[in-house]
Amino acid sequence: MKYEKSDPVRLTEDETAVEIIDQTLLPNMLKTVRLHNAEEIYSAIKNLQVRGAPCIGICAAYGVFVCAQRISAQDRGEFFAELKIAADCISSARPTAVNLPWAVNRMYSCAERNKALPREKLLEKLKDEAAAIHEEDIETCQIMSEFGLTLMQDGDSVLTHCNAGALATSRYGTGLGTLLLGAERGYKFHAYVDETRPLLQGARLTSYELSNAGIETTLICDNMASYVMSKGLVNAVFVGCDRVAANGDTANKIGTSGLAVLAKHYGVPFYVFCPFSTIDTDCKTGADIEIEMRDGDEIKKMYFEKPIAPESVECLNPAFDVTPAELITAIVTERGIFYPPFDFEEDQ
Amino acid sequence: MKYEKSDPVRLTEDETAVEIIDQTLLPNMLKTVRLHNAEEIYSAIKNLQVRGAPCIGICAAYGVFVCAQRISAQDRGEFFAELKIAADCISSARPTAVNLPWAVNRMYSCAERNKALPREKLLEKLKDEAAAIHEEDIETCQIMSEFGLTLMQDGDSVLTHCNAGALATSRYGTGLGTLLLGAERGYKFHAYVDETRPLLQGARLTSYELSNAGIETTLICDNMASYVMSKGLVNAVFVGCDRVAANGDTANKIGTSGLAVLAKHYGVPFYVFCPFSTIDTDCKTGADIEIEMRDGDEIKKMYFEKPIAPESVECLNPAFDVTPAELITAIVTERGIFYPPFDFEEDQ
Repeated sequence: MKYEKSDPVRLTEDETAVEIIDQTLLPNMLKTVRLHNAEEIYSAIKNLQVRGAPCIGICAAYGVFVCAQRISAQDRGEFFAELKIAADCISSARPTAVNLPWAVNRMYSCAERNKALPREKLLEKLKDEAAAIHEEDIETCQIMSEFGLTLMQDGDSVLTHCNAGALATSRYGTGLGTLLLGAERGYKFHAYVDETRPLLQGARLTSYELSNAGIETTLICDNMASYVMSKGLVNAVFVGCDRVAANGDTANKIGTSGLAVLAKHYGVPFYVFCPFSTIDTDCKTGADIEIEMRDGDEIKKMYFEKPIAPESVECLNPAFDVTPAELITAIVTERGIFYPPFDFEEDQ
Repeated sequence: MKYEKSDPVRLTEDETAVEIIDQTLLPNMLKTVRLHNAEEIYSAIKNLQVRGAPCIGICAAYGVFVCAQRISAQDRGEFFAELKIAADCISSARPTAVNLPWAVNRMYSCAERNKALPREKLLEKLKDEAAAIHEEDIETCQIMSEFGLTLMQDGDSVLTHCNAGALATSRYGTGLGTLLLGAERGYKFHAYVDETRPLLQGARLTSYELSNAGIETTLICDNMASYVMSKGLVNAVFVGCDRVAANGDTANKIGTSGLAVLAKHYGVPFYVFCPFSTIDTDCKTGADIEIEMRDGDEIKKMYFEKPIAPESVECLNPAFDVTPAELITAIVTERGIFYPPFDFEEDQ
């Protein structure tokens, strides 16, 4: 696996840790952090130092390898028991994005498949599997972005929510991949970026990535999307996602379902971008997707100089919402562009 | 005029200044500021130390009186020329809320009507007119809130945006008046409060006012309204407004039009509350209402510890949007509840 400077996740050269860009500090500080064990990986995912569904998957995959290396037990049964504990710990960090359990399960299956091999060979297989997950994601994002370009005209303007760029994946990204690939090819796109409260991934990460790539970028508050659409300022909405049910219902960052309702109302196409592995046919509909509820202090205190509301006031802080399939114009994956009615059990 | 402790605007006892609660410092600090001349009044309105359409009107009315008192010119022609300059200055502080020019014009007309009176008598008339505007607003809000209660059941839950409570008006408020009056009568209402980016009037002011009144209050980010409505957590949306066109199109805090689209989609009634004076039949439709554009640093820097986006990223910061009449269930005023199709030229 050949890393690039901007990769948000990598294996350290000595292969004893996962190194991540601490995304909570951007755009004011670009700092990396090394994660050496399951607890550190769990905590970095939980606290969103590493975030973005595909990126969490890649981090978790390298994480399982790093944890496997640290297991001193010589007995193979003990080794697998310890590996299972580490894998379960990492997998439990956040509930909504399917990429996390998907990547961890893939790593654990790889270990089981190779359990007859000597320890060093088994570890080699795990390292290769993690690198493969990473490389496949890069390739997947590139192909998806090529499909995305077929939906755009030069000069188009896109509204995007949260961060679905390189920081959320590996390179290019899902929802932002089309813009970033297009920029490389000389297309002049304009991006309207929702700041994405409460944790401001749009402001902090997306506007940082897009402006670095030379894309004309306008930051707005989430509640300005209706204004922007009503004025005809955008040709499409592009978002990534965390889990897609068999019927096309899509979980993504809180606020996505509202954007989809607005897009429908204003006649703006609404596109979801994701690797095909994000489609979870174990979930029949969006009702089967668990929505992570997070601490109210993320709304009231995080990033602010002073609390923005009285201590006694309760907050409701769902980290995701589910956009019903009927509000989605198309789902763009590396296998092609899927239009409704969606039936991913058929397409599997 | 008998003031109450919580009134956001009052004339000082010596009648030389308008005293306001500095709303930019709430909820962390309750501090009053005294405004002595047109420049200070202009600046306090422009910088949102005093805000909320009816409240701006009351502040401007007392402001015209305070400015009139300071005019030393003995010549009546000079007096009126100076008064006109002060009135125009105050009136130009913000463009969207009609209450500001409405109140200033009413004060100026009062002066003109009484121009034959001796100076002291004329000033007396102006003071009485400002107090009348204030008192009428209190009464208007009370009547409006009574009408609002006819739309509610005990135990109902309401979503509200920005701040349309006592701080935005005088007492009770427009959009929040029903909840506050209901609380006094022992109704158990629940309020979901949009934080209202960028200046967080929902978080800072509404959640402060409602929780002080003992109303069960849940703060959410603006982008969570779709989630809240999709889960059936609210029975209605209540908002105030800054200007209503003859056809019912309504300008209010940015994000209101998006809420109205969501409310329509989810089948939630959407109510606008305002004094009848907020209806501006000089505007035929919402297209005639000027939308104030504000500085991008309100999005990127204000209230935050560190900037939330790179310096180079542009922001679009419209302070208001227009909700088309067809998305409004009813407009509640002191003259009654108006249902569509609206025709306020007829109702004038």
